[in-house]
Amino acid sequence: MMTRHQAKMILSLQKKKVREESSLFVIEGDKVVREYLMAGNRVVLLAAKPEWLDGEPERVTVMADETVTVSYDDLRRISSLKTPHNVLAVAAMKKPDFNLERLADSLAIALEYVQDPGNMGTIIRIAAWFGIKDIICSADCVDVYNPKVIQASMGAFMHVRVHYLSLEDVLKEARVAGIPVYGATIDGRSVYESALTPNGIILLGNESKGISDGLLDHVTARITIPGPEKPMAGIESLNVSMAAAIICSEFARRRL
Amino acid sequence: MMTRHQAKMILSLQKKKVREESSLFVIEGDKVVREYLMAGNRVVLLAAKPEWLDGEPERVTVMADETVTVSYDDLRRISSLKTPHNVLAVAAMKKPDFNLERLADSLAIALEYVQDPGNMGTIIRIAAWFGIKDIICSADCVDVYNPKVIQASMGAFMHVRVHYLSLEDVLKEARVAGIPVYGATIDGRSVYESALTPNGIILLGNESKGISDGLLDHVTARITIPGPEKPMAGIESLNVSMAAAIICSEFARRRL
Repeated sequence: MMTRHQAKMILSLQKKKVREESSLFVIEGDKVVREYLMAGNRVVLLAAKPEWLDGEPERVTVMADETVTVSYDDLRRISSLKTPHNVLAVAAMKKPDFNLERLADSLAIALEYVQDPGNMGTIIRIAAWFGIKDIICSADCVDVYNPKVIQASMGAFMHVRVHYLSLEDVLKEARVAGIPVYGATIDGRSVYESALTPNGIILLGNESKGISDGLLDHVTARITIPGPEKPMAGIESLNVSMAAAIICSEFARRRL
Repeated sequence: MMTRHQAKMILSLQKKKVREESSLFVIEGDKVVREYLMAGNRVVLLAAKPEWLDGEPERVTVMADETVTVSYDDLRRISSLKTPHNVLAVAAMKKPDFNLERLADSLAIALEYVQDPGNMGTIIRIAAWFGIKDIICSADCVDVYNPKVIQASMGAFMHVRVHYLSLEDVLKEARVAGIPVYGATIDGRSVYESALTPNGIILLGNESKGISDGLLDHVTARITIPGPEKPMAGIESLNVSMAAAIICSEFARRRL
């Protein structure tokens, strides 16, 4: 049985402030929770319908410090989803270390002021798909532990380290270390024709403003996804997560 | 002043049945409505705040059969958005003709049972970006005139013809006409290494089920976006709209 205190705690984790103070976050969805546990991650609390628990092997359920059985109505009360799944877990955040040296032979994505949780989750999924292990976010990006981001990432958040850092500092250090910084802009060279290294930072800007002038100064190559030859109303640019998909795909293609 | 009857009519257009019976749909958003009107499209009804109307040139406002001024509260009542913009338009649907012969030298996207309005809107935007003029949907795909689709397409719906047809029939005819059909699957040849023609049909399947066996029979080449070398929990596949972005990008790259 879930206590009122637990229900309140879970609901409060929808707030970023509470997540930061407690270093806890919520994972929802039968498949994602299962995979999180099967990957060897412990959770603080598992709130599940009895049927779900009965259907899981012990190596899954044993990964919870505490397990409570809940009804559908309980889940609906504590879920951030319109239609809750059968299980919800509270887990401890990981604060990954960022190591610029890794970028001597691997790629990272840097995001400036990306606000939409769906975009952030999608970009995490794209990074995981293309084997990109680091996403460096400006402090004003949406929180990776926002329930909507976790949801949109479809479990991919497990495979990617998301850092919140001063992009200004990271890009400056990258320049000193000779690590290329690719900025996605609308006035760059075609990404298909640009020289793309197997390492470096792919910088993507805010959904409507793009990359700020301050950060553009640190970009070593501007890359653009060629669009319509004549400007067309309503399609001035691609969405940031689509741009991420296409650019990461092109980097991956060159490596093959 | 908006009448109660008009408000009721606008709200009722959130239902697919009403849209089909009336052949009308709703466009929201200051920018999208403006672009729709500036592109020379007439609308049946324009419901706008007086400030919005005052700021627009006559060639925009003259495109409405009827114009009513509304308050913010009016807009909130009739909008499908949480935070309404300053204008909403009711327009007549277009039922474009599908012409298979066009695919002798151009590309089309075919969607089987794509359910999510965000995915559909995003795919329309991708098609417009890459100059793909036709999207052929199975009858059970989400309605292109669903307010969320129109919203997610960001105005790109103006530039793409969306058809609802039997994909079975279209793909059979394509085969007879010698038009290649590329099916996005998880077991195909790498899209980067596949022979891609400047014409044909790119077939994408349902968000979780992929392409049905019945339609796979008509696919002339299975293409796959290479992902992680080792299977990773939570990233079994890419979302259908990301797959569309990457595949359309690769087709575009080959043409350049």
